[in-house]
Amino acid sequence: MTTKMNRKFILKRRPDGSPTEGDFELVKEPIPKISSGEFLVRNHFISLDPAQRGWMDDQPSYMPPIEIGASIRATTVGRVEESKNPNFQEGQWVLGLNGIEEYSLVQEGGFTSPIDTSIVASPTNYLSILGAVGMTAYFGLLDAGQPKAGNTVLVSGAAGAVGSAVGQIAKLKDCRAVGIAGGPEKCKRLVEYYGFDAAIDYREKSPEQLEKAIKDAAPDGVDVIFENVGGEILDAGIMALNEHARVVLCGLISEYNSDPRGARNIWQIIVKQASMKGFLIRDYVPKFAEGAAVMAGWIADNKIKFDEHVEHGIENTFDAFMLLFSGGNKGKLILDISGE
Amino acid sequence: MTTKMNRKFILKRRPDGSPTEGDFELVKEPIPKISSGEFLVRNHFISLDPAQRGWMDDQPSYMPPIEIGASIRATTVGRVEESKNPNFQEGQWVLGLNGIEEYSLVQEGGFTSPIDTSIVASPTNYLSILGAVGMTAYFGLLDAGQPKAGNTVLVSGAAGAVGSAVGQIAKLKDCRAVGIAGGPEKCKRLVEYYGFDAAIDYREKSPEQLEKAIKDAAPDGVDVIFENVGGEILDAGIMALNEHARVVLCGLISEYNSDPRGARNIWQIIVKQASMKGFLIRDYVPKFAEGAAVMAGWIADNKIKFDEHVEHGIENTFDAFMLLFSGGNKGKLILDISGE
Repeated sequence: MTTKMNRKFILKRRPDGSPTEGDFELVKEPIPKISSGEFLVRNHFISLDPAQRGWMDDQPSYMPPIEIGASIRATTVGRVEESKNPNFQEGQWVLGLNGIEEYSLVQEGGFTSPIDTSIVASPTNYLSILGAVGMTAYFGLLDAGQPKAGNTVLVSGAAGAVGSAVGQIAKLKDCRAVGIAGGPEKCKRLVEYYGFDAAIDYREKSPEQLEKAIKDAAPDGVDVIFENVGGEILDAGIMALNEHARVVLCGLISEYNSDPRGARNIWQIIVKQASMKGFLIRDYVPKFAEGAAVMAGWIADNKIKFDEHVEHGIENTFDAFMLLFSGGNKGKLILDISGE
Repeated sequence: MTTKMNRKFILKRRPDGSPTEGDFELVKEPIPKISSGEFLVRNHFISLDPAQRGWMDDQPSYMPPIEIGASIRATTVGRVEESKNPNFQEGQWVLGLNGIEEYSLVQEGGFTSPIDTSIVASPTNYLSILGAVGMTAYFGLLDAGQPKAGNTVLVSGAAGAVGSAVGQIAKLKDCRAVGIAGGPEKCKRLVEYYGFDAAIDYREKSPEQLEKAIKDAAPDGVDVIFENVGGEILDAGIMALNEHARVVLCGLISEYNSDPRGARNIWQIIVKQASMKGFLIRDYVPKFAEGAAVMAGWIADNKIKFDEHVEHGIENTFDAFMLLFSGGNKGKLILDISGE
């Protein structure tokens, strides 16, 4: 081992509302030594996701809270630097649940798997369209949302990595796709680039105006909502639901940094005999290969467009992460810490 | 025809929040004359239900709003007084969707059907356990809630007509039944009379105390919520959900007289991959005979207890109706306007 150090972006204290720079610290530690069965990964690409904000809280969740002093948990793509595990050779590209850190020690049986970078344009694709993002769109819409041909699918956060894929899959399934996003530029992109049938700019709209805009864009009502945002956007969508409609609750990014507001209009869920289903991609991991095969086919046929927004440098993690909440990223947000 | 008049309890203006006496008027009109195919029903018993509050608003709903000047829409049990329809003979007991009025004119094809009063202790049973109330409990729990043996079922408004039946059906299906009600007397009754495993008095409890009480009463977590109340009670229940739990949204009586508050903790629906399903009994009308047959068997075997709270006199409609919102009724609320 050289005297190279491992830079880690750790949780110093739990954020109160919106995270501040002082909640984190970039620390240097010796690179961990590996034992038999273990291997060391040099992380190149870090997935930055809204879910990480939830893991920073001391709340019951589907994963334990990130411990104070630990690296921020993250899905990463990297290469095996050193290995005492016969299944992972030096130089192998891997995808795993690790942390925002240059080097991760992976124990036997950890959530890390080899990836084939020869079939993709960039290894980062495994953090976007062929990873949790693409699979969330695929299984969230098709399995949880059960769209039928001719249905109208309303997608919030539609210009985001998941949302833009959801709209395109809806179109591939002969649905009308209506997207909600912030600002005219994103809305233009939804229609002209991703092929949504209509786009709604939620900014500077009152709840009533938003409801009207949705009803105008979905004249036959909404059969499936794919919800990434929550708050007034979800409530406005609920008011346009058809009978027996399905709401896929995928994310509620509008309230991750505040007290939960929830959905005020759930009385419409009764009136419309609709359903609202919480979606976590975790349940679908065993079906990833199936979903990725379909998705890879669509990519090869040029039927799905996807975008990656890559920021650089582990020292810029905080600013990069906060883009998620300002809506500043265009496509799946990825941090490149390879130093290349 | 005699010069007897028809007293009708009509909607004078739409209530703003909690209904006031001035929103209604008891008027006298001539008894309607029937034409060929029609018949006249003398209403004896009126079902008073929270849903009626919703129909008073000028809101899109699953039924049109009650028109200003029209009788308050209600399910009634009465007898055919006069008939020009070969299927309905004078003296026949009938159940129908009519109004709070002494006499209702029923047109051919109206929602009115003959009932057999010889098999029940009282014709009012068709407004409670063998009617929409009992069938809501039956299909709402078993079809929408999908409880499995060993599951924990949490019921709000548990001392009400629907709630008390839900808890008993849960027990018949080998589930743990936990009820939420207001006041020690109702809670005692839930356990000692209806056979719930545990009862929680929501009164004078903070949201945190309510959450703790639910977790104490449901040590293995909650698999099915049967929700009649909404608001803080629903939010506290959501915090105790197990993975893949089902929330049956049957009613939200806590917010019928105010701006909707909704569910603030729907983020837990995501975390637990739970679902929330809006339930209207309307969809199940074609299956009523099936449900009523099972229910009648349970009643005959003394396995289901049910209560009817009967108030008297059409002139007392307003006070009787408001019992629904103060929790003052013990059992299914029925107004006897037979004058007998």
